[in-house]
Amino acid sequence: IGYGDLSSNIIPKGKAGEGRIFVKQDCTLAGIEEASGIFGILGVPVLPLAQDGQGIRTGETVLKLKGGIRRILAGERVALNILSRMSGIATLVRSLVERANEVNPNIRIACTRKTTPGFGFFEKKAVILGGGDPHRFRLDDAIILKDNHLRSMGSIAEGVREAKRSSFTKKVEVEAEALKGAMEAAEAGADIVMLDNMSPRQAAESCKKLKERFPGIILEVSGGITPDNISEYAESADVISLGYLTHSYRSVDFSLELD
Amino acid sequence: IGYGDLSSNIIPKGKAGEGRIFVKQDCTLAGIEEASGIFGILGVPVLPLAQDGQGIRTGETVLKLKGGIRRILAGERVALNILSRMSGIATLVRSLVERANEVNPNIRIACTRKTTPGFGFFEKKAVILGGGDPHRFRLDDAIILKDNHLRSMGSIAEGVREAKRSSFTKKVEVEAEALKGAMEAAEAGADIVMLDNMSPRQAAESCKKLKERFPGIILEVSGGITPDNISEYAESADVISLGYLTHSYRSVDFSLELD
Amino acid sequence: IGYGDLSSNIIPKGKAGEGRIFVKQDCTLAGIEEASGIFGILGVPVLPLAQDGQGIRTGETVLKLKGGIRRILAGERVALNILSRMSGIATLVRSLVERANEVNPNIRIACTRKTTPGFGFFEKKAVILGGGDPHRFRLDDAIILKDNHLRSMGSIAEGVREAKRSSFTKKVEVEAEALKGAMEAAEAGADIVMLDNMSPRQAAESCKKLKERFPGIILEVSGGITPDNISEYAESADVISLGYLTHSYRSVDFSLELD
Amino acid sequence: IGYGDLSSNIIPKGKAGEGRIFVKQDCTLAGIEEASGIFGILGVPVLPLAQDGQGIRTGETVLKLKGGIRRILAGERVALNILSRMSGIATLVRSLVERANEVNPNIRIACTRKTTPGFGFFEKKAVILGGGDPHRFRLDDAIILKDNHLRSMGSIAEGVREAKRSSFTKKVEVEAEALKGAMEAAEAGADIVMLDNMSPRQAAESCKKLKERFPGIILEVSGGITPDNISEYAESADVISLGYLTHSYRSVDFSLELD
Amino acid sequence: IGYGDLSSNIIPKGKAGEGRIFVKQDCTLAGIEEASGIFGILGVPVLPLAQDGQGIRTGETVLKLKGGIRRILAGERVALNILSRMSGIATLVRSLVERANEVNPNIRIACTRKTTPGFGFFEKKAVILGGGDPHRFRLDDAIILKDNHLRSMGSIAEGVREAKRSSFTKKVEVEAEALKGAMEAAEAGADIVMLDNMSPRQAAESCKKLKERFPGIILEVSGGITPDNISEYAESADVISLGYLTHSYRSVDFSLELD
Amino acid sequence: IGYGDLSSNIIPKGKAGEGRIFVKQDCTLAGIEEASGIFGILGVPVLPLAQDGQGIRTGETVLKLKGGIRRILAGERVALNILSRMSGIATLVRSLVERANEVNPNIRIACTRKTTPGFGFFEKKAVILGGGDPHRFRLDDAIILKDNHLRSMGSIAEGVREAKRSSFTKKVEVEAEALKGAMEAAEAGADIVMLDNMSPRQAAESCKKLKERFPGIILEVSGGITPDNISEYAESADVISLGYLTHSYRSVDFSLELD
Repeated sequence: IGYGDLSSNIIPKGKAGEGRIFVKQDCTLAGIEEASGIFGILGVPVLPLAQDGQGIRTGETVLKLKGGIRRILAGERVALNILSRMSGIATLVRSLVERANEVNPNIRIACTRKTTPGFGFFEKKAVILGGGDPHRFRLDDAIILKDNHLRSMGSIAEGVREAKRSSFTKKVEVEAEALKGAMEAAEAGADIVMLDNMSPRQAAESCKKLKERFPGIILEVSGGITPDNISEYAESADVISLGYLTHSYRSVDFSLELD
Repeated sequence: IGYGDLSSNIIPKGKAGEGRIFVKQDCTLAGIEEASGIFGILGVPVLPLAQDGQGIRTGETVLKLKGGIRRILAGERVALNILSRMSGIATLVRSLVERANEVNPNIRIACTRKTTPGFGFFEKKAVILGGGDPHRFRLDDAIILKDNHLRSMGSIAEGVREAKRSSFTKKVEVEAEALKGAMEAAEAGADIVMLDNMSPRQAAESCKKLKERFPGIILEVSGGITPDNISEYAESADVISLGYLTHSYRSVDFSLELD
Repeated sequence: IGYGDLSSNIIPKGKAGEGRIFVKQDCTLAGIEEASGIFGILGVPVLPLAQDGQGIRTGETVLKLKGGIRRILAGERVALNILSRMSGIATLVRSLVERANEVNPNIRIACTRKTTPGFGFFEKKAVILGGGDPHRFRLDDAIILKDNHLRSMGSIAEGVREAKRSSFTKKVEVEAEALKGAMEAAEAGADIVMLDNMSPRQAAESCKKLKERFPGIILEVSGGITPDNISEYAESADVISLGYLTHSYRSVDFSLELD
Repeated sequence: IGYGDLSSNIIPKGKAGEGRIFVKQDCTLAGIEEASGIFGILGVPVLPLAQDGQGIRTGETVLKLKGGIRRILAGERVALNILSRMSGIATLVRSLVERANEVNPNIRIACTRKTTPGFGFFEKKAVILGGGDPHRFRLDDAIILKDNHLRSMGSIAEGVREAKRSSFTKKVEVEAEALKGAMEAAEAGADIVMLDNMSPRQAAESCKKLKERFPGIILEVSGGITPDNISEYAESADVISLGYLTHSYRSVDFSLELD
Repeated sequence: IGYGDLSSNIIPKGKAGEGRIFVKQDCTLAGIEEASGIFGILGVPVLPLAQDGQGIRTGETVLKLKGGIRRILAGERVALNILSRMSGIATLVRSLVERANEVNPNIRIACTRKTTPGFGFFEKKAVILGGGDPHRFRLDDAIILKDNHLRSMGSIAEGVREAKRSSFTKKVEVEAEALKGAMEAAEAGADIVMLDNMSPRQAAESCKKLKERFPGIILEVSGGITPDNISEYAESADVISLGYLTHSYRSVDFSLELD
Repeated sequence: IGYGDLSSNIIPKGKAGEGRIFVKQDCTLAGIEEASGIFGILGVPVLPLAQDGQGIRTGETVLKLKGGIRRILAGERVALNILSRMSGIATLVRSLVERANEVNPNIRIACTRKTTPGFGFFEKKAVILGGGDPHRFRLDDAIILKDNHLRSMGSIAEGVREAKRSSFTKKVEVEAEALKGAMEAAEAGADIVMLDNMSPRQAAESCKKLKERFPGIILEVSGGITPDNISEYAESADVISLGYLTHSYRSVDFSLELD
């Protein structure tokens, strides 16, 4: 609590007006629900003209506002920041999904836990809106045994066995950097195996061998995957996951204009 | 509240170990205080080997950890995410400050309010650690009259006069897209004038004319400034502000390794 | 905020003393970690003499306390309430696990979501300490399609298909009151099928037929199961779940005595 | 924050429907206000058909609901859990009040502080709805000197004197296990004396002697009282308190059905 | 979250020093526990040289501090504000208690609910430290029937009867502006009667008549009582309550000096 | 959570009524927005008959209420406390502003940080409503270098220089007890200089000399200023600040009456 929004406070208290938020480049929209919610909390009625997940074009108005000008300005910056970032992610995800689907129509594109602290929930929601998979939201959405976990257990098999004891409602995933570990994990009963930091060719070969022996297993590839090489990984895996989705997207430019 | 960190929970409860966080590329370090704080909350003693704001090199260890492995793993992801992002920003700011200082050793580089919702405080702190200026943290750190504000007031002069009435302890800044408005604001007593969306040449000329008549005024240029054109703006302004600092930086890659 | 603990406040402020918490009947201990935590928050050093999950006997001391008497009394009631209830659950679970294991050594005993609002986390933790499975902690721990969900979807198959789209990291469970629905769910790819409100015989037959066709599926029986009939259900299922564990247990009597 | 209710989320977003909550056994209703409040928060309009404190019969509908199916399902479990538990307590209290009133129409039935951590407020409210007395909600509702308090003071008289100094607005109660202590407490000015762990006969004799000398005093009996022996204690006391009310009640079975 | 304490931040981070808080006028000390707590939270070790409730003299040091200068300055203002206000109240209460005790050594001086929103708890604590009675902290510390309550009930008798039904652990107080209402309340079983806005003589006569008939009753006088007329009210009542204690005290001047 | 408002709870639940809040002495109104807000939260419709900042007369009704009597009574005390205190401050400020303006029509009257912990925001708002300046709300509203800060820095000049480095958006103020320090601060670039604890004559002379050399500087006088001597300080300064405004005002008497 302090002075409040000093800049907006110089505008006379009751003064009302209309405004609109529009986009300055083609993109997949995400965050319109959050932006509407912010103005709702501030008591500014809004009319969304587009929906989250929809493709929109340069210049298109996505939200109309009508209410106290002080309040509109109070919500402006946060609303624009959310729209810019969530739409940036959704747009990137959509393009990668399309690119990967050309090679393999059943592939899923997922993000990782490399999200912005405090904003990760919205980043993952944007991934979903772009057609991707949020992977884990929390540390108990599934059990994932990484290098550091396995190093503290006796063996992969022991780790998986222990993991399956947690609850019969949870899937167990194991990260492996080589086929040997992947096989060991699958044999021990892992539901998902993630092939980490493999070349496209290594990944493809590993997938083939694993599927032959364990047809029900889910295979995820990850590590160093970017828009440039995603197509090379798409053929044989079930899921491709990229930290790139949440740490290297570009914001989309939105603007709020008062009439 | 739920299962907790299912993956770490399979590691025996008392098991202790040592680990280190190291960096995979040259950068300016930021976030070591936050990362240490996270492990502190988790009860894991840490030894920082580098300080926030310091330049570090590929492979350098920045933090040593010793304690329960479950706890180390519980803090791993958030700590790495904070380090990656804050160091990414600090590194970018440092390079821009150096570039701009070659042209004008007194120039200040500032960020804007285009920050990530929920993480903005840390982004602004990273700007400071890189040698930049955080501009406003909150809406009452100073009074900034933008286009949308002025459109709701009768005139720039009236806006500034009203603004100065808020409190004698606050500075008043006005955004102007042309010299005329800038002059009007300076005349009305604005402490800071921001020249928005001008070409380098327009900006330089405007600065010169404003300083001639109002030598005590602080001049800020903003709008469309990137690493590529920052040198062209640096000569005549007192402050350069860029949304780029907080929405287009690249994360720095850090990793945690258990021994 | 108010008067605080009026009754304890009449004891002189600095006065210290020793005390112990002991149990008045044989049981499986649960809640000693929470009780210790409460006194820890209050600044009263404690020495636990038994561990959560361990069997203890009438009269046994489980916790020694030493510190300000006001503080000991401030924590007394909550600590005893937690110990009584969590130990009550753990004791019940342990006895049911033993009873069911005589029939089927691989069976798991799980609780349901019929927990006390605000205390459910601790009730589920007590289930684990007694050797049971907590099932879901939250609504996103797994996807469970109940009668009411399926009634709102076109068919079981459609429901399961939609559910599997949420995320590749989640298991899908379907509740069925007859073999037909159970088969349909298994065919559609459900990871777990719950047979609800069946007689022991119906349940056994359904399990047999389902396992023949879907050997990898997990089968849970639930509905009206009590300590009296649990043995009859244990033979063929993988999991037995009972609301009884969290709504019909009896508290164990603990007492705090100051020396 | 996470996936949200994964199971309900597979139901189409806008889909609306109607439902009802009904009871599966005769009972005294409690928790209808809380259940309505939960659906209110979720934006589901409800129509209660019965009131808290009222007797209801097997099969009776207590609440009608109409709204988004996702939202109805989101509130289902918590609403049912609250209804089941609060009605279980109210039903028990009502029957004990009736039983005790046959012997002594002025007797009050009270609960103790043996409540479920986090749910105690609702348990005490259910006691009131069943016709009982909630005793203390908080540690400063009255001053109660128990064994452990008195052991830390010089004598009962000193304890009471000190207690009365706290504030003239508070009553002072003393727990006594024998007539001698009870007399000492009454003499020192205690407003309420609780006779703890006495046999029905001891309790009756003590009450008689105390009332003769201190006609204005309030006498409470407690300790080991159950539905089986409550009638034997009811004749001479003013208040009977039982931990049984909140730790040994049986849940009432409610169900939510979508049309 | 924002810039933090900008003024203190210019002092070098590690710089340590010593300081002391001293008083600039004779008073009864209150707030030393709170002031110590504030510096404790900030990580500044303190050594209190005087205790809450004790009389102190001009120039006396009440607290020594040793630690980071930034941290000392961060706590300075709030600590001084609390000490000034709480000591102001305690000093006033002490002098009124002495004045009233000369006339009636058993009289209690109490405050009312006319406290500062957000600071009332500390004001009431200061009243206790000065030797006064805090009256109610919360609306459920006792049942007080005021004019506005009684106007909404049929009669005083009905109000008291209803009030006594709430719980046997609570006292019932009635406000009366004339003897008639006071008698009616006492007859109906009120534990405390407050005589409101009476002249000293009226109050004395009313007290006499009430005590004759109801020797066990507690009588409180209130309304328009100040340090100037408190002696005139003290003779016959049990309690005198004054809003004056919390809304018209004068702050005591304390200062923090760095060595 | 506890019994709630026991006294109001004896009034039948649905019972509605009307009431009004009126003032018992002439004053400047402040707090009507807060009082309305409190009743708003409680679901009691209100009609304000006067506005914050307006002068009102003895007996004038400022707020009409209509709704559940329980709810009206639940909000009564806090609403009256806020109105009494905020109006007390606003009334005092208004009278001092008028007194000072007779001598110097451009002078501003400001409060200090000597506010009530937990209520300071409302006290500062009342200062604004009375026509005063709130000075700093938080420690980062401006940088103020006091005696204790400067003692920890090498010199005034060094302190100011360091302070100006924090951010170009902040003003820097220095407290000085003599002209020499004031000059040093002004020379180093301080935006505001506060002359502390000077006699009216000293203050006037210092102001004159400072303004001659630094015409753009803002001069504030503070320390020991009261309604009695404020006129003597008003002539030469730009701002007068007094702790008196927030720690020595008298509450205004308001009352709520049910019809």
